[in-house]
Amino acid sequence: MNQYNPAMLVDYYEYTMANAYTLSGIGDSMVYFDMFFRDVPDKGGFAIAAGLDSLIKYIQELHFTQEDIAFLRGKGAFSEQWLNSLSDFRFTGDIYAVPEGTVVFPGEPMVIVRARADQAQIIETYLLICMNHQSLIATKANRIVRAAGGRAVMEFGARRAMGGDAALYGARAAYMAGCCGSSNLLVDQRFGVPSLGTMAHSWVQIFDDEYTAFRTYCSLYPDNASLLVDTYNVMKSGVPNAIRVFKDLGITSGSIRIDSGDIAYLSKKARAMLDEAGMDWCRIVVSNSLDEQIIQELTRAGACVDSFGVGERLITAKSDPVFGGVYKLVAVEADGLIIPKIKVSENVAKITTPHFKKVYRLYEPTTGKAIADYICVHDETLDPAQPLELFDPSYIWKRKTVQHYHARELLVPIFKDGRLVYDSPGIESSRAYCQREIESLWDEVKRFENPHTYYVDLSQKLWDIKNGLIEKNGRPGDQL
Amino acid sequence: MNQYNPAMLVDYYEYTMANAYTLSGIGDSMVYFDMFFRDVPDKGGFAIAAGLDSLIKYIQELHFTQEDIAFLRGKGAFSEQWLNSLSDFRFTGDIYAVPEGTVVFPGEPMVIVRARADQAQIIETYLLICMNHQSLIATKANRIVRAAGGRAVMEFGARRAMGGDAALYGARAAYMAGCCGSSNLLVDQRFGVPSLGTMAHSWVQIFDDEYTAFRTYCSLYPDNASLLVDTYNVMKSGVPNAIRVFKDLGITSGSIRIDSGDIAYLSKKARAMLDEAGMDWCRIVVSNSLDEQIIQELTRAGACVDSFGVGERLITAKSDPVFGGVYKLVAVEADGLIIPKIKVSENVAKITTPHFKKVYRLYEPTTGKAIADYICVHDETLDPAQPLELFDPSYIWKRKTVQHYHARELLVPIFKDGRLVYDSPGIESSRAYCQREIESLWDEVKRFENPHTYYVDLSQKLWDIKNGLIEKNGRPGDQL
Repeated sequence: MNQYNPAMLVDYYEYTMANAYTLSGIGDSMVYFDMFFRDVPDKGGFAIAAGLDSLIKYIQELHFTQEDIAFLRGKGAFSEQWLNSLSDFRFTGDIYAVPEGTVVFPGEPMVIVRARADQAQIIETYLLICMNHQSLIATKANRIVRAAGGRAVMEFGARRAMGGDAALYGARAAYMAGCCGSSNLLVDQRFGVPSLGTMAHSWVQIFDDEYTAFRTYCSLYPDNASLLVDTYNVMKSGVPNAIRVFKDLGITSGSIRIDSGDIAYLSKKARAMLDEAGMDWCRIVVSNSLDEQIIQELTRAGACVDSFGVGERLITAKSDPVFGGVYKLVAVEADGLIIPKIKVSENVAKITTPHFKKVYRLYEPTTGKAIADYICVHDETLDPAQPLELFDPSYIWKRKTVQHYHARELLVPIFKDGRLVYDSPGIESSRAYCQREIESLWDEVKRFENPHTYYVDLSQKLWDIKNGLIEKNGRPGDQL
Repeated sequence: MNQYNPAMLVDYYEYTMANAYTLSGIGDSMVYFDMFFRDVPDKGGFAIAAGLDSLIKYIQELHFTQEDIAFLRGKGAFSEQWLNSLSDFRFTGDIYAVPEGTVVFPGEPMVIVRARADQAQIIETYLLICMNHQSLIATKANRIVRAAGGRAVMEFGARRAMGGDAALYGARAAYMAGCCGSSNLLVDQRFGVPSLGTMAHSWVQIFDDEYTAFRTYCSLYPDNASLLVDTYNVMKSGVPNAIRVFKDLGITSGSIRIDSGDIAYLSKKARAMLDEAGMDWCRIVVSNSLDEQIIQELTRAGACVDSFGVGERLITAKSDPVFGGVYKLVAVEADGLIIPKIKVSENVAKITTPHFKKVYRLYEPTTGKAIADYICVHDETLDPAQPLELFDPSYIWKRKTVQHYHARELLVPIFKDGRLVYDSPGIESSRAYCQREIESLWDEVKRFENPHTYYVDLSQKLWDIKNGLIEKNGRPGDQL
């Protein structure tokens, strides 16, 4: 079994800081961290949150073995006081998060942690691994699914995934975001994601001829025949042999798969040959370095494709393989008060939004479409009976009054005092929810090229607090 | 503990094929598969092999639990004959591979598997995951290390890795390929890779002021002070506070880290301030989306940097995140004879080189530099006393006779009849070997832009076999 303790899959500095918080007497101060991202991968209009289930499992099981503690002691950097606290460590803080499948935008918290400083600090690395990786793949997979326009997209990428976890959790995220299944058996065993697949070129090569290879396979799996037709020559050998075998064995459902060559040309020719043989029931599956761009090109070229097997470019999010989620301190508690904290930067985009916050999504009541997200301080509430003035937090003269709207709070409680208070909906519910989330967006936000920038605005109170802190800590322009 | 059985981290079709091999009576035929890749990531001149240690562990532990078998039975696709064979399954074949850290080129086998068809088939997915992921990261990390030109490169990418395995094995591959350490504590605990790190912005923010944050840290870790100076304002606050604290506490070794802003400008200004304060001992560490291109730019711009912390662009190989290794059937045994097998394709690059092979690397005796790789049939041997005529396998009129050379066989036996016959050298030896491998290359092959194409040639015998099979199976040009 491949195993490790995620408590040790951590940046070393989380532990030097936690030890130092403890020694300097601030380990038990309650602090607030936000996890958020700054840019949508592929210059898309939105991202899809994923990774919460892994995060929950991590938090629930977070502990240190005696071997872990002995190893840490051996580093010579940690106090006995802190090391001893690890023996019966468990997370006792609060976590809020957006459910898996939620559409999210830059700058808004996807996860909020309120916990003792030492605890909140050490969960940073693994929290980011879960959220960044799985949100990246969910976001990419959804792009590919949308490009396929209703035709099935199957996740085929395990062999090009960045390690086993990437194959497993990447396939899960892809399914949640709209793929119809995965080649990966483990994601079926673990999460019930439908697993799919039939043959590789090796099956065809191992026999003396292609006809025998196809015939043998179809005899054994008459109900699941997807014949790979490009081992030798798609048009002269693969498709004719598939037709012969289907005919000889009386097969009346199945598919062929084309994995190389000019997919547009070959799929049209293959379709014509199959139809001429009376096999309009035979589906055409294609694979070979597909992504949302190539699928759109194939569609424009009139390719006759029923479903797409998408591998390396999905499972690695090849065109933009980093979901740049960060985890930033936004407030500390002192004498019962919440003190907002900021990180200033010469890069304006790297300035954080301070304080313990809430995020509302506002919907147009008639269409159900999302209008804007509204980030406010934790103690503010929205009254949809009153008009709401929104303004762009960067260009504050850009203002708009919303008269009628529904509002939904995006972040829900996950842990309270270390206790799980969230009922995970399960992968099928998350998948359906994700689909509804996509439907709540205007087409302009979903465009691949130059999408409309969705509004993510701050309340006046939150904006005032943020700007006050920027003034106090020195404006970024003063750097040079 | 995060765990799964890698036997189940497999493409479903491996098992439908294995079951079908068994039922059709060819499961116990001995077959040969090659693992190789077609293109060097980032259009580089070479790649670095990694992943063998993970592959060895996988093969040694390969088994199925009763739960796994019950799950497979529940799929309704597998015969009892095959399912029963899984209870006491163990791999009994032969594996040859290039050691970790070996420089490898497109088209040559990195791993050769000789095993029963059912066994050789099912290890495909996990073998490719190990080799593709870790070779990708080793290759990328080595590019970055070479760009840094002797200055230290630290792997900082865990939070942006594609899951836990990517963080762990990516950091290991990066160290093997020349990084000096990692932020990731697990890779230290598991593999002894030096772990590094001091503070995040949260440490600075949690205190009322930056001076107190720095002073507190340095008091606790006087020997390991790397102060992060960009939380508020590098020049007006961060560097002056670092200097004050170093002075006030009498610190005489340490560093500052700059994680945002214009690194070239800020590092030069910071260097001047530190030197003026008599702190020429203070090193400058920089981070923030670095890669080999940016490090080269910083160097050209005269940035004053002592070491680089490289995160997301290394751990995801952002510029080209796919190592396209494949696993192809190249021969089957029948009546004691090895029958070479080929896969033809309209894409000439996708035509495989058949047969059970050997790979020699030829070296110039005087310089020790590698001249060419020579792939031949398993029963051929090289006699360095005789001149050797090399020819380009695509342009066969390009010929060259090598008069004096040393030859080394690249692939070494790893498993024999399922028994491990290889003594893993350990990470430090592999790292030193990798360094020697790089030194054996001419600078022209190491160039980032448009590198010289290293010769990877076939023996006349192997070329004849390959071309005979292409003729027999139809030339790819006949597809259209």
